[in-house]
Amino acid sequence: MQEAVALRVGLLGFGTVGSSFAEVLAATGADVRITRIFNRDVERKKSHERAKFVGAEVKWTSDATEVVTAEDVDVVVEVIGGLEPIEGWLTTAIHAGKHIVTANKQLIAYRGATLLALAAEKKVHLLYNAAVAGGVPVIPGITQGLSGDKITRISGILNGTCNFILSAMEKGAEYADVLKTAQSLGYAEANPSADVDGFDARAKLCVLSRLALRAELNPDEVPAQTISTVAAIDFAYAKELGCTLRQVSRAEVAGGKVHARVGPMLVPKEMPIAWSHDTQNMVVTSGEFGGDVVFSGHGAGGHPTAVAVTSDVLRIAAGAAAVRFPATASSVDGDVTAPHYIRFVVADQPGIVAAIAGALAKYNVNIDSLLQHRGYAAEKLPFVVTTEPCLRSTLERAVAEIAALEYMLEAPLVLQILTSDDHATD
Amino acid sequence: MQEAVALRVGLLGFGTVGSSFAEVLAATGADVRITRIFNRDVERKKSHERAKFVGAEVKWTSDATEVVTAEDVDVVVEVIGGLEPIEGWLTTAIHAGKHIVTANKQLIAYRGATLLALAAEKKVHLLYNAAVAGGVPVIPGITQGLSGDKITRISGILNGTCNFILSAMEKGAEYADVLKTAQSLGYAEANPSADVDGFDARAKLCVLSRLALRAELNPDEVPAQTISTVAAIDFAYAKELGCTLRQVSRAEVAGGKVHARVGPMLVPKEMPIAWSHDTQNMVVTSGEFGGDVVFSGHGAGGHPTAVAVTSDVLRIAAGAAAVRFPATASSVDGDVTAPHYIRFVVADQPGIVAAIAGALAKYNVNIDSLLQHRGYAAEKLPFVVTTEPCLRSTLERAVAEIAALEYMLEAPLVLQILTSDDHATD
Repeated sequence: MQEAVALRVGLLGFGTVGSSFAEVLAATGADVRITRIFNRDVERKKSHERAKFVGAEVKWTSDATEVVTAEDVDVVVEVIGGLEPIEGWLTTAIHAGKHIVTANKQLIAYRGATLLALAAEKKVHLLYNAAVAGGVPVIPGITQGLSGDKITRISGILNGTCNFILSAMEKGAEYADVLKTAQSLGYAEANPSADVDGFDARAKLCVLSRLALRAELNPDEVPAQTISTVAAIDFAYAKELGCTLRQVSRAEVAGGKVHARVGPMLVPKEMPIAWSHDTQNMVVTSGEFGGDVVFSGHGAGGHPTAVAVTSDVLRIAAGAAAVRFPATASSVDGDVTAPHYIRFVVADQPGIVAAIAGALAKYNVNIDSLLQHRGYAAEKLPFVVTTEPCLRSTLERAVAEIAALEYMLEAPLVLQILTSDDHATD
Repeated sequence: MQEAVALRVGLLGFGTVGSSFAEVLAATGADVRITRIFNRDVERKKSHERAKFVGAEVKWTSDATEVVTAEDVDVVVEVIGGLEPIEGWLTTAIHAGKHIVTANKQLIAYRGATLLALAAEKKVHLLYNAAVAGGVPVIPGITQGLSGDKITRISGILNGTCNFILSAMEKGAEYADVLKTAQSLGYAEANPSADVDGFDARAKLCVLSRLALRAELNPDEVPAQTISTVAAIDFAYAKELGCTLRQVSRAEVAGGKVHARVGPMLVPKEMPIAWSHDTQNMVVTSGEFGGDVVFSGHGAGGHPTAVAVTSDVLRIAAGAAAVRFPATASSVDGDVTAPHYIRFVVADQPGIVAAIAGALAKYNVNIDSLLQHRGYAAEKLPFVVTTEPCLRSTLERAVAEIAALEYMLEAPLVLQILTSDDHATD
């Protein structure tokens, strides 16, 4: 007999996102268990490499109705997508008193108002953070952190496939070639229309409009312009205008209407929206009181999307029972292994570099570069040494020796140089 | 007699943030009322320009104990700051069954574990989204949206004053001058030590470490390096290294320890952390499954901080009663007034520009620039016209006429040019 758990999950779909959810949920160590999984071709899915992340006692089925009304399911997690037959299944689940977590943007964009009203009536949660911008918590940010503001505009990079294509074209690739690459990497479907023609981004924009602008839109009314007519020449001209090209989704409240549009636009390089590269997503909200807030990160992919789904499940679990992640008292290590910048100010004389290099070598600190700008007086000469990654505490011992040299006019300034892959080490 | 409201607020502090909170709360239209306000020198505060945002029936007092135990207070909002006497007041309030919303980073960093445990025991909410990064919803993002991930590192720009100073120095200002400017603008205190020496950022880093890394740190153990020794020469050398300088706060879990540090660091210009300018704040979380997520926006100031405080109050109100912001069905207007880019491909011949300019003029569309790169064959010549802001629908009618000209080889491509101040117009 199974022990009691805080929350039991019925999972609809064991593809990339569903199997990643099983892995991410297991990694949390939370008292939440997947009890049932629906997928077509159950036998093939049972041998999926991530099937090891669900317990042996899980019940696999190719009949979704066995999941959505099951006694041993508290929350239905849906990661299949599309309107039908999903809407019917989730409606049945809500009527059966199940909470819902879904990553389905089309469903929430087109049927969200109805489903949310039904969930409120039946007093169950319907959470869908994964439906927009995958692993970027823009929905909790808006609903929990910005509910006090009056948001008047949303601008976003909401489709990672288009961003991948346009970022690659920015670097010189041709549309047809990069679309093929996107398809081979699994970023784009064989029929790429939903992505490149803007229908995917449009659905997400409508989900955000409901939450941020409190405006219920019909996605079909939002103009969507394809990116497929953008050519290399447009990037060349855009560059000349100080811009790049991105598929931008925008909605703004003005004069009692919502002005909304999705399509390729020229974006000045200094605007945050131009910062998104590859498959990244970004959302910029503009609030009357709080100004612009930027959210950015991985908008798609199994693991980032699974993080959003898992976080929703944990939120429901936290309401249902005590699923807590207490912080543990931790000792601080202020040391770091990183490249460093050291600025010296000296009264110049022969032998200084040799003395500094010698002191650093004594502590096994390797010099990466030596920088000296012209135009400073020799009596008070600033120059810089950068190091290869080294332990800060070791470096400071070496610098303390150097600081004692008689021609040092100021205490040397030691600064860490951030790198995108630096890590603390023990 | 007053009508019943969903939630009654006792406000501690009616300075910049407290009075902004009164304004922002009133603007939400939520069924939440400020019933009591504590401040020194009540008579002066009553004549504050934002006092109009609280009802005439509010009870002003210079005795905080009259607020924290009052019968007509459901939630105590604290926006004064500092450890004492605040900790005592809020402890009393929790014992009296009041929910707490605070913007106090020092209190949450140093006493948060104790206060949160007490709040859990007394079954009241203790929310503090405003304590880190002001109006940027990084705490809801982490706790609600990323709880499913294993976050291993936080990097941030957590002190707007230091960012203001270092951004200005990047453009050539001297430290002493820009510090004076920051003080005259109210960004820095007369004694700027808490900001420039990293103590403010360190407290915020510890608040984030508890939530994101689930590690309880003693702020006093985190090394904090001052920015006051950074000089213009360091920006010159940093630039040569492809970097800029920022006050960076970092904490990372590795080998069972937390490696943490606050101080000026060299930041490569392509890293998101280099994007923050002026008083902006930024937090980058790095998760095992979700990768890097960026949050950015206004980290301080009365209104952005008030948005965070108000959002917390509304979250408590939503639990206490039905405070909902239903989305209203809205019509979509896909039109936009903006500058546009039009790319033509023509078989070149005399008179084309005149024809295009004439067609645009007929619709009152003004040309901003005409771009033509060299090196294309005259038989298939691409060139670009950019327009001043115009209504898209009008522009498309003009372009339809132009598209019918016999030397047009392709349908002209019309793209909106984003501007930082463009707005939908009616």
